[in-house]
Amino acid sequence: MLEHFKIPEDQAVRVPLDSLRKTTEEIFLKCGVSKDDAKLGTDALIFADSRGIDTHGVSNMLRTYVSSYNSGAFNPTPKNSIINSTASTAIIDGDNGLGLMTAPFGMNIAIQKAKETGVGIVTIRNSNHIGAAGYHAMIAIEHDMIGWCMTAGGTSMIPTFGAEPKLGTNPLAFAAPTNKEAPFMFDAAMTAIAGNKIGLANRLGKTMEPGWIANEDGSPNMDGGSTHDFIINSIRTQLPLGSTRELGSHKGFGLGTMVDILCGQLSFASGFASLDQNRRAHFVAAYDISAFGDVNEFKNNMDGMLKGLRETKPMPGKERVIYAGLPEMEAFEERTKKGIPLHPEVIDWFKDICNKFQIKYELS
Amino acid sequence: MLEHFKIPEDQAVRVPLDSLRKTTEEIFLKCGVSKDDAKLGTDALIFADSRGIDTHGVSNMLRTYVSSYNSGAFNPTPKNSIINSTASTAIIDGDNGLGLMTAPFGMNIAIQKAKETGVGIVTIRNSNHIGAAGYHAMIAIEHDMIGWCMTAGGTSMIPTFGAEPKLGTNPLAFAAPTNKEAPFMFDAAMTAIAGNKIGLANRLGKTMEPGWIANEDGSPNMDGGSTHDFIINSIRTQLPLGSTRELGSHKGFGLGTMVDILCGQLSFASGFASLDQNRRAHFVAAYDISAFGDVNEFKNNMDGMLKGLRETKPMPGKERVIYAGLPEMEAFEERTKKGIPLHPEVIDWFKDICNKFQIKYELS
Repeated sequence: MLEHFKIPEDQAVRVPLDSLRKTTEEIFLKCGVSKDDAKLGTDALIFADSRGIDTHGVSNMLRTYVSSYNSGAFNPTPKNSIINSTASTAIIDGDNGLGLMTAPFGMNIAIQKAKETGVGIVTIRNSNHIGAAGYHAMIAIEHDMIGWCMTAGGTSMIPTFGAEPKLGTNPLAFAAPTNKEAPFMFDAAMTAIAGNKIGLANRLGKTMEPGWIANEDGSPNMDGGSTHDFIINSIRTQLPLGSTRELGSHKGFGLGTMVDILCGQLSFASGFASLDQNRRAHFVAAYDISAFGDVNEFKNNMDGMLKGLRETKPMPGKERVIYAGLPEMEAFEERTKKGIPLHPEVIDWFKDICNKFQIKYELS
Repeated sequence: MLEHFKIPEDQAVRVPLDSLRKTTEEIFLKCGVSKDDAKLGTDALIFADSRGIDTHGVSNMLRTYVSSYNSGAFNPTPKNSIINSTASTAIIDGDNGLGLMTAPFGMNIAIQKAKETGVGIVTIRNSNHIGAAGYHAMIAIEHDMIGWCMTAGGTSMIPTFGAEPKLGTNPLAFAAPTNKEAPFMFDAAMTAIAGNKIGLANRLGKTMEPGWIANEDGSPNMDGGSTHDFIINSIRTQLPLGSTRELGSHKGFGLGTMVDILCGQLSFASGFASLDQNRRAHFVAAYDISAFGDVNEFKNNMDGMLKGLRETKPMPGKERVIYAGLPEMEAFEERTKKGIPLHPEVIDWFKDICNKFQIKYELS
């Protein structure tokens, strides 16, 4: 994580992982979610918190889920249905449930199919926020498979040369197993920054960096420095990865469109054809490594590759090269020991919601 | 294409598509390539030339292929072998042939598998340069499928915070069919610019823009202005898409690593575990849209989406928003009528090689 987004240690309240898990599960239950789904949703959130993905853990997300359940925007007891299943593919209708639970349902089907044919690809429509896409991709690696997860919906990415947002931030996650090294886990919005980083920046009193957001007329904001207004107005016109055409923003825009096609068009989700994407659509895939060759050899080769990247000679002023998945594993080791650092404002929210839901507050 | 990379019309020699095709085919034949492979390799190159992808057409690539055949670096008569085939997957050993022909071989197998199970995924090892990855992805759309193509190998991408290159430019291509709109065809290096743009810039006497390459110590060159030295020294330390950590270069680096895993590790290609990637490895995949739903509905939805992107209100100073695949289709319409614009230096090369190979020169 950029220093920009780190909670200063003297402000952080360290919360034990188990109590955070217990409290989060109880909050989901109070929203009317089933026991299994509460467990699953909590696991996805705590995955993010325990791995330093603070944007997608309890701090940013839980409160929005609670308010969406309470307002009736999300269905707390969805019935997933499987549509058009073939040997290697399926579409899931998520019945307006939370993506945190729908995506693992889809991924488990993809894994079953991959066991039989080598590959399973499942698209999911009529769903909602997925949490950290990396969580769902990582389910596959426990089965010695490569995992993919993408999610699309909303309008915050401004197309290159455009003056209005047309796509979501459209994250793409990809995970591959290893023997000794931290597993490779890539998970990134196809905008220059993730949407949730804006909430995080606000909480930390930080401004936007150059190249992250668009000016009001759509032109790339390459000065930075803005953005309390940006946040409170919810005008989330974020630039694609690459920021400007010269730096390659057409690539971020193209990748974002690809994610929209795989999630929205390939699940035949309503609204995606007209770019009016109220609900989320997802894409999950699993590739069985044993279909291609020896699993142990693959993992050893992954170790060699990732070690080679990690040991790249660093540029001046930098300690080392960090591959995707390495800092998450290091954060996991530290946070399982020392607890999850939460911002005092988040602690206050937990106190309030526990009070409201008549849950015993036992985080700090 | 950025104006930066356009041949000025008054310098361009317009060559009819058919004569360029005929001459290119004859050059391949003179390199010892079979008739079928010469046709296939030519088709891949002319695909690029006719669609304005000048970096991957005859201008940059044909001369390097000829010299690699002549030096014995490429096998002109490879025997592709299929390894570990399952219902939805296979690995191809390309027998050190040119990727231009090996990738379509792999894609056709992927398409066959997709007809049976919904998905086909084929990795290819022991191959060489693939040309425009988009060409191979586009093969799938003629079968009403979604197509993927990636290619990895070489060392030119510098990892974020690194001082030495470790990965190739590792392009990712993705194509999806439409009814009325130009098909969506994304094809981009996971570096800020494609490697071949450097050759093109050199021919046009252009310098590097900020954010494209690294300084000698590995730090991002955000000044631009360099680079005849960069070219002639072949020190191709290119920055990942995103250029700097703040702008998101860890995303380009992560995507580049993902491409390396899918191409190199998933084909068990030698050298990829140690990042010593002399030969190229590829990944192709096809998803049968009819496995997911109605093909015509999918294509209509794609039309709606792409039209919506194309009609995005533009930012000041820009005429319109351009989605991936649109300018390529427009170039195709113009160039099939007016001919392919070649740089005089390229014309000279053709004259020389025709003379050397005793081929009748009939381009201009």
